[in-house]
Amino acid sequence: MNVILASTSTLFGGNYLEYLKDELFTLFSGIDEIIFIPFARPGGISHEEYTSKAKDFFAKLNINVKGLHEFADPIEAVNAAKGFFAGGGNTFLLVKTLHELGLMGILSENIKKGKPYLGCSAGSNIGGLNMKTTNDMPIVYPASFECMGLVPFNLNPHYLDPTPELKHNGETRETRIMEFLIQNKTKVIGLREGNWIRILNNKITTEGSEYTRIFEAGKAPYECPPGSSLL
Amino acid sequence: MNVILASTSTLFGGNYLEYLKDELFTLFSGIDEIIFIPFARPGGISHEEYTSKAKDFFAKLNINVKGLHEFADPIEAVNAAKGFFAGGGNTFLLVKTLHELGLMGILSENIKKGKPYLGCSAGSNIGGLNMKTTNDMPIVYPASFECMGLVPFNLNPHYLDPTPELKHNGETRETRIMEFLIQNKTKVIGLREGNWIRILNNKITTEGSEYTRIFEAGKAPYECPPGSSLL
Repeated sequence: MNVILASTSTLFGGNYLEYLKDELFTLFSGIDEIIFIPFARPGGISHEEYTSKAKDFFAKLNINVKGLHEFADPIEAVNAAKGFFAGGGNTFLLVKTLHELGLMGILSENIKKGKPYLGCSAGSNIGGLNMKTTNDMPIVYPASFECMGLVPFNLNPHYLDPTPELKHNGETRETRIMEFLIQNKTKVIGLREGNWIRILNNKITTEGSEYTRIFEAGKAPYECPPGSSLL
Repeated sequence: MNVILASTSTLFGGNYLEYLKDELFTLFSGIDEIIFIPFARPGGISHEEYTSKAKDFFAKLNINVKGLHEFADPIEAVNAAKGFFAGGGNTFLLVKTLHELGLMGILSENIKKGKPYLGCSAGSNIGGLNMKTTNDMPIVYPASFECMGLVPFNLNPHYLDPTPELKHNGETRETRIMEFLIQNKTKVIGLREGNWIRILNNKITTEGSEYTRIFEAGKAPYECPPGSSLL
């Protein structure tokens, strides 16, 4: 496989996908067109608006972008595509739409055959086994929480360390993930902004500027430096 | 009805339910025993541990507490109960368990007949129309997101204002609720810690120390002072 699952599309103070530009040259090397999956719709924007944002960025890499919503037969479109990018937004909305259109398995098969895939945030969540460690609000009810399983674990994108000065009683991200591990035995990768998971052939590594926090049932959470294998 | 739906059980630096003590005297006036619903299990603690925490507090009000998990027939127990308290934790776990046990409708009916009910956090979410505005992580998959509908709107407990100094690209609470309103037309009450919703007979008001932030489709969010009607 040839995959990037990024914590976020945009770093604080940066431009859309800018910090990943060199990586995306490599990921999509030799490819002149990809399909964008706009279904997570951040901020509720239209599929068209969201696709044109992706299109603007990928023009700099001489890659054309078509929105998956533009095709009358999205399954055929996924099977005919050369590569994919699933943007961030609301994971519940993304997963619901992919299940409704019968695309979750088809997309997974195409990526497992070697077609390059970029996911950001919600688009990265769907690379995991299921979406049970998303941060998103359950604004719609998906037919299932199951995802593509490109990696043998779950992701928590935008992983956030506790803010001790916050006088607030809501759960920290770590507490939430530890509660997940009481109910599930699946490993969780806490992916800080600036980091991504790279799948290349049979290797899965954590990359980027930050350490990655890993949560496993029955163990204390631990940190891995960039370049560490996640298998 | 005679209901309190509180944003949180515990204020920063305070003790469990302490800030609500006077209100709870009134809510449960004349009642010597309530049933505690421990299914949200904060931090993954056992139903027994969680129930004994509630029991310790209510002993100060001379009210005995029995955990709903202690009963062989929970439907019969709810129908025979004098009042209820549903504690916080994970809303997905709470809603899944209530649906599995066939309790969501039964509990709602008993409360609508006038039996007093206290909800905190997840226990307040289930007082809304559905759980689509919870902050919790979807660690389990409930059969449905539908809730008791004690109020004709949804709640967002632990409502949190944006933290501008946070260099993080995850969505703010307000952004998440605005995304909900693109997909749904249901009003959302952003309930800051220190606040609660009071249902007394046919009145529904927001109470406590903070203003309450209200979100409606097609309107800018707005603030209401304590004592405002929510109907």
